[in-house]
Amino acid sequence: MSGQEIEQLIRLLGRLPGFGPRSARRVALYLLREPQSRLAPLARAMERAGEAIRTCSSCGNLDTVDPCHICADPLRDHALVCVVETVGDLWALERAGVHRGVYQVLGGTLSPLAGTGPEDLNIAPLFARLEAGQVREVILALGATVEGATTLHWLMDRLAPYTAPQGTVTVSRVAQGVPMGGALDVLDDGTLAAALGARRPA
Amino acid sequence: MSGQEIEQLIRLLGRLPGFGPRSARRVALYLLREPQSRLAPLARAMERAGEAIRTCSSCGNLDTVDPCHICADPLRDHALVCVVETVGDLWALERAGVHRGVYQVLGGTLSPLAGTGPEDLNIAPLFARLEAGQVREVILALGATVEGATTLHWLMDRLAPYTAPQGTVTVSRVAQGVPMGGALDVLDDGTLAAALGARRPA
Ligand SMILES: [Zn+2]
Ligand SMILES: [Zn+2]
Repeated sequence: MSGQEIEQLIRLLGRLPGFGPRSARRVALYLLREPQSRLAPLARAMERAGEAIRTCSSCGNLDTVDPCHICADPLRDHALVCVVETVGDLWALERAGVHRGVYQVLGGTLSPLAGTGPEDLNIAPLFARLEAGQVREVILALGATVEGATTLHWLMDRLAPYTAPQGTVTVSRVAQGVPMGGALDVLDDGTLAAALGARRPA
Repeated sequence: MSGQEIEQLIRLLGRLPGFGPRSARRVALYLLREPQSRLAPLARAMERAGEAIRTCSSCGNLDTVDPCHICADPLRDHALVCVVETVGDLWALERAGVHRGVYQVLGGTLSPLAGTGPEDLNIAPLFARLEAGQVREVILALGATVEGATTLHWLMDRLAPYTAPQGTVTVSRVAQGVPMGGALDVLDDGTLAAALGARRPA
């Protein structure tokens, strides 16, 4: 309709997560109305980020340095490892500022249906450090989904040899329950069941 | 948090229409997880679209050629001109395939509050063609907003000399009412009033 370069831009924008044809056209028009001040800087930022991006060989985080700034930080507790599914989860925990240790980013979950097995998960660095006696506690911060639960139980089996009585490593998992500020009547049944099951004395 | 190149990409993505910090991070992560197959092609498409983009000097459409493919199409009715506010409106009408004439894209509306006056609107080409006797009908397809109505009335005043009894040009405006497939109870009062006011024998 408007030249193949424009159509191609709209097509690629339409593949982004959360995008449909309508939002792709809206963003394309927004960029194309001001090519110099909107389109060009974003294209440049993408190119530069693409050149700068590194996957941390230690934890799997995305950063512009390897090891990432978290793994390279001597002030963090490197014996406290939080296992997350994705880099997005890591970023969320960092924004919340709630974890003072380091991370292990699995890059996915176990899912027989999707064909992802243990060999697809980025877990070897964690076990290398467990073998070297460098880990005191492993926090499993996985999603409250079927895949998250499957991955959690597989990990707990693999971590068992490092915990008491054979080893000294502590393995913990994040609590499930009512989100802060969340009303009970909008939560799904699974969350309500987990919140009730994990009840404490008031 | 993750290197300035990544932060800059997230910042620019966050300025796109419909984006917030959360969606900017999500899209950045999606792109950065696969730099070669996701980020690079989109950056290239942006660059190419930015180089190819032209504003049609006749109608104001965005295209890769000037005059645009609509203005250059001999099969379209060049005496039937549809006035729209934005290129997005033009694209929507083209997708719907409901207009067989050409367009005039104003590039905005009259808005004393926003400081946009007649000199900010791309309207001169239309009046040049009216003066040259090349226009038979002008369809005003402006938004049903205060600014759209202000612009519509200003345009009708300026078009008056070309209509009967002095001239032969017809000026029409798109109907306002209940959108196709729309339930009445989700429409705002203004739309309901317009739909009632423009009622016809059933
Ligand atoms: Zn790292
Ligand atoms: Zn044109």
